[in-house]
Amino acid sequence: MSGDCWVAVVGTGPAGPEWLTPETADILERATDLVGYGPYLDRVAAGHQRRHASDNRQELDRAGHALDLAAEGSRVAVVSGGDPGVFAMGAAVLEALDRDTEGRWRNVAVTVHPGVSAMQAAAARLGAPLGADFCALSLSDNLKPWAVVERRVRLAAEADLVMALYNPASRARPWQLGRVLAVIAEVHPPETPVIFATAAGREQEHLTVTTLGEADPARADMRTLVIVGMPGTRVLEREQGTLVYTPRYYEGA
Amino acid sequence: MSGDCWVAVVGTGPAGPEWLTPETADILERATDLVGYGPYLDRVAAGHQRRHASDNRQELDRAGHALDLAAEGSRVAVVSGGDPGVFAMGAAVLEALDRDTEGRWRNVAVTVHPGVSAMQAAAARLGAPLGADFCALSLSDNLKPWAVVERRVRLAAEADLVMALYNPASRARPWQLGRVLAVIAEVHPPETPVIFATAAGREQEHLTVTTLGEADPARADMRTLVIVGMPGTRVLEREQGTLVYTPRYYEGA
Repeated sequence: MSGDCWVAVVGTGPAGPEWLTPETADILERATDLVGYGPYLDRVAAGHQRRHASDNRQELDRAGHALDLAAEGSRVAVVSGGDPGVFAMGAAVLEALDRDTEGRWRNVAVTVHPGVSAMQAAAARLGAPLGADFCALSLSDNLKPWAVVERRVRLAAEADLVMALYNPASRARPWQLGRVLAVIAEVHPPETPVIFATAAGREQEHLTVTTLGEADPARADMRTLVIVGMPGTRVLEREQGTLVYTPRYYEGA
Repeated sequence: MSGDCWVAVVGTGPAGPEWLTPETADILERATDLVGYGPYLDRVAAGHQRRHASDNRQELDRAGHALDLAAEGSRVAVVSGGDPGVFAMGAAVLEALDRDTEGRWRNVAVTVHPGVSAMQAAAARLGAPLGADFCALSLSDNLKPWAVVERRVRLAAEADLVMALYNPASRARPWQLGRVLAVIAEVHPPETPVIFATAAGREQEHLTVTTLGEADPARADMRTLVIVGMPGTRVLEREQGTLVYTPRYYEGA
């Protein structure tokens, strides 16, 4: 982060400024250029920086653009939602660097900075469903075969891991979540808690606590994070609202 | 978080104030009482609040103490390091509530607020090793049988998940990490990248990038987070330092 040209990959957190770390705020302030998906840039206070908004795809092109700007002398913040290291631009920028066989980005310092991820925000809204061993899986088969997704889900269920499911559904992928829930239901009982957290922490936030037996995959859209518990995951109904947690102890230990 | 008595479970992030969210800073400011492990409370600027420091164990007692204080009219922040929802006090406070069959904490509002976890900080320091599907596993067998730990590790390796291993070692648990690395080595090739991140982001930070075949379990202590990659995880040696990332695409996709 020292020197005059750099790429810093940062995350805004999944909602407003209350989850933006001071480190990231400082980097955004020092940047000359911001590169990212438009809605994420919109979360960042408008300032002196040049904005390079793009759509939600072509991560590698966006990464290359950021590295080019830095190689020309800019200080570039690549802005993800959530944590840039979790299904976001961190890996994309490093993949672009990795492919730079000509060394044209050799002099660009590249750093990644942690942020609050969508699964952490969604989990916290309802308590601590990720309170014991868990995994984070993307259900998108744009970059991996569907068979790999299904195999990972099955093994994670057999391992009794709580699952945070990213990219559960989109218009182009309407049936995948239903199939995944069916695979998990072959391993876990129908009472296993399931959470649909849509736009957690944002104005349109909608949280649903249901069960594996009753979960309706159609509740999920592109803004939804789905958390599937393990058999020990507990739901507490309180006057103040519903809480969900996965105990730190293993049943029978 | 409204009303006059509450328990808010928060996390400082794994190091200094640069990773403390504005939301958590605000809660700490509004609290009358802080409950937590001493070193975590030390990370929070000294203020008007009563401090209730404890050692690193007896999480349930600590949770009960916080709920008692709130039931008596206090505004209590339970302070974890990292994210309170990831192997921390979130689940402990909800477990205490769950056991409150007499309803003595019925009127206490309980909320959990996300923070930057140790694995995210450690990962970011080296790039994006958690950039694809991953899991977070605690190797402590204080609260679950060792056989469960080993079984989860084996299934996670078979699923090609990157693993963030919490509580890899302590004086009371000296052999567990070696055994876990041996289990993973039965599934993954010896070149698979392994990271030892000790005190990430703090003054004593020490980062080691090695391989499954060469990893020395004795490098880990209580402050260490171990990340074991999957076979596709890549290491980039740059003039500016080493970077590690796990590609978003699956080899062969």
